[in-house]
Amino acid sequence: MKIEILCVGTEILLGDIVNTNARFIAKEIAALGLECYHQSVVGDNPKRLKESLEIAFARADAVIMTGGLGPTYDDLTKETAADFFGRKMYLHQPSIEWIEGFFKRIGREMTENNRKQAMMPEGAAVFDNHNGTAPGLAIKGELKEHPEWGEKIAILMPGPPREMVPMFKESVVPYLTSFSQRVFVSHEVHLFGIGESAAETKLRDVMESMTNPTIAPYAKDGEVLLRITASAENSEAAEKLITPVYGIVEEKLGEYIYGIDVGSLQNALVKLLREKQLTVATAESCTGGLIAKRITDIPGASEVFGMGAVCYANEIKTKLLGVSEETLKNFGAVSHQTAKEMAEGARRVSGADIAVSTTGIAGPGGGTEEKPVGLVYVGVSTKAGCETFELRLARGYSTDRDLIRWIAASNALSLATKAAQKLEK
Amino acid sequence: MKIEILCVGTEILLGDIVNTNARFIAKEIAALGLECYHQSVVGDNPKRLKESLEIAFARADAVIMTGGLGPTYDDLTKETAADFFGRKMYLHQPSIEWIEGFFKRIGREMTENNRKQAMMPEGAAVFDNHNGTAPGLAIKGELKEHPEWGEKIAILMPGPPREMVPMFKESVVPYLTSFSQRVFVSHEVHLFGIGESAAETKLRDVMESMTNPTIAPYAKDGEVLLRITASAENSEAAEKLITPVYGIVEEKLGEYIYGIDVGSLQNALVKLLREKQLTVATAESCTGGLIAKRITDIPGASEVFGMGAVCYANEIKTKLLGVSEETLKNFGAVSHQTAKEMAEGARRVSGADIAVSTTGIAGPGGGTEEKPVGLVYVGVSTKAGCETFELRLARGYSTDRDLIRWIAASNALSLATKAAQKLEK
Repeated sequence: MKIEILCVGTEILLGDIVNTNARFIAKEIAALGLECYHQSVVGDNPKRLKESLEIAFARADAVIMTGGLGPTYDDLTKETAADFFGRKMYLHQPSIEWIEGFFKRIGREMTENNRKQAMMPEGAAVFDNHNGTAPGLAIKGELKEHPEWGEKIAILMPGPPREMVPMFKESVVPYLTSFSQRVFVSHEVHLFGIGESAAETKLRDVMESMTNPTIAPYAKDGEVLLRITASAENSEAAEKLITPVYGIVEEKLGEYIYGIDVGSLQNALVKLLREKQLTVATAESCTGGLIAKRITDIPGASEVFGMGAVCYANEIKTKLLGVSEETLKNFGAVSHQTAKEMAEGARRVSGADIAVSTTGIAGPGGGTEEKPVGLVYVGVSTKAGCETFELRLARGYSTDRDLIRWIAASNALSLATKAAQKLEK
Repeated sequence: MKIEILCVGTEILLGDIVNTNARFIAKEIAALGLECYHQSVVGDNPKRLKESLEIAFARADAVIMTGGLGPTYDDLTKETAADFFGRKMYLHQPSIEWIEGFFKRIGREMTENNRKQAMMPEGAAVFDNHNGTAPGLAIKGELKEHPEWGEKIAILMPGPPREMVPMFKESVVPYLTSFSQRVFVSHEVHLFGIGESAAETKLRDVMESMTNPTIAPYAKDGEVLLRITASAENSEAAEKLITPVYGIVEEKLGEYIYGIDVGSLQNALVKLLREKQLTVATAESCTGGLIAKRITDIPGASEVFGMGAVCYANEIKTKLLGVSEETLKNFGAVSHQTAKEMAEGARRVSGADIAVSTTGIAGPGGGTEEKPVGLVYVGVSTKAGCETFELRLARGYSTDRDLIRWIAASNALSLATKAAQKLEK
């Protein structure tokens, strides 16, 4: 079944709100294995709404709409959709009772325009709204003006996400799955340390030769995510199709893989540390707390993380972590040596099994020819010793401070994970 | 000029990412006084992309597209758009030089598919991409198959927001405004500590009575931004229209304003500290480094920030900041007393003029009836003494860990700014 998403709302067109409804619905219908090739947004304007709906019906079997079900005169989604199917409106008794009860509960008088929300097209399936007054609905049948297009479905839901999301899960999912025979399953392989185009180059042949499962690469914030998707008659069969693909990806890109369905580098690190009952500490200069922040983004991080030191000033590197003034004087704060002493100091002070440090030049100012913006040293200290790494992150992004800091933190998280893999308590 | 937004990307159709690009562009073009009646999303599929573009050209004068400018074989936006205008592609020398330099700087080999990004349709205006490899572009002229529609414009930008947003501001705004006789000027008033609907209620009368300038409130991450926009024949005239509006906003919402065009709470804090030659230190438990991270997001933060301590574990609170074991035992880590000792300890250890601390329960786990998720204490220490504040952040946000941490950090930044306002070196 081909589905289209059509969101109705002038506030989306004006950029007043982000269209999170489209994203939610898109994700849900992808998970159901239904196809969706188009999302559109149109304002509360009957003529343009009608035109957009006609375009959508011409392309898709079902159109899922949000917005325009409210009580006011410019809420016209339901009336417009009903007209396509040539359906008359009637007062849906359970809905008017629900709406009357709703107003009674909140102690307000129901204004007359609220009756509009209980008017339903003949033959529509009505979806209860447990979080507001406007019920949702589905209309199925031939279109009045285009019977030659066959049966079409219009699904209408209210615009506010806290009404729409529960209604989708409770009512729309069962409605949609009653039409589907196949199931889609996706898994995500997370890569760090390789760019999208290089990853694709390595996988090109495989990607082009495969139709089910498929592999699709996505680049984000210096990482690459490979989404492997299979469709089959049930989820076990889909999983069986996916399993051998892991081996192929492992063979081509094994050194860059940090996890499957693991979400993020920090998640992979915290998960591994918990499994191995290890702890980590951080000592940050140029990343300024970002590594600690990313680790503590993960609920339960307190089991594996006790201390982070943000040592922006040299005196603080000495005071908190015992970095020697000699080292700072002879090699500078941005050096292998300082990174090493920061990591070792953090491990000593915190008592953690692993400590990672960063020191570098995040820019846009502060760079020199010898030590340019983007030069970052990462230190990793464990009982096995301390390693340091030199990174050059002033990519084409040159002065993108945020990205330099992000990638430096990602490297530190990745190196901490690798250290944890090798370490035993 | 009627504009349409067409975002290209299978990852949007699959719901992998929220379409923040459409929202950003919608808001910007509304601020420019241009009309936009449709937003659409289509995947990286040449046939459907072509169909969607044709629909958009039939309805609008200009189509702004994002995505599909990358190096891989499924990136086809540019080729598809060029074909509408009957333009051939050529190698744009400055772009290939930029891309080659980009790869040189990051020390990776440029794969051959990257040349594709430097291919441009004849006669296109090319927009530099300072944050990635794919340049943007605009094509203007008659469509090959529909000359009867008159002149149309296609504007193409890369999909990643951190590339698209700066390109839009630097290149697309001047390109679009070159077709208009009027100039639009916007300024942003930043509020913290008040919700959007409360702010709107206080400004309702003013907002409704004004047409030029206009005031539009936007809520984001616990803050409210008021965008004041004026149009006039030149920017000086527009500025003159805006100036009296500041006074009106100040009168209604003065206590919540933390800056004009200042970007963020951390920016306002760093700016003020630099002006007054003051310094700040942070001592974080539940925010886990986020306050330090936000402060060090600002270039030049090293002038005002030397130390941040992330003390997730109680022992570390004692070890780094000298929080007494008694206090932790008697009042718990999440208490006024611990927040106070953390802030005082951080000020003492760092020698900073101001120290802020946070300790709380970010959730989703760890809450009790007495100390529920969202309970956060913030301490602010200066030579004038130490104040502590109790926040209850779990309201509508329920157990949203990220948001609770963000709002706790925002409060700490706001309180540090207020302390800096009162403090003299």
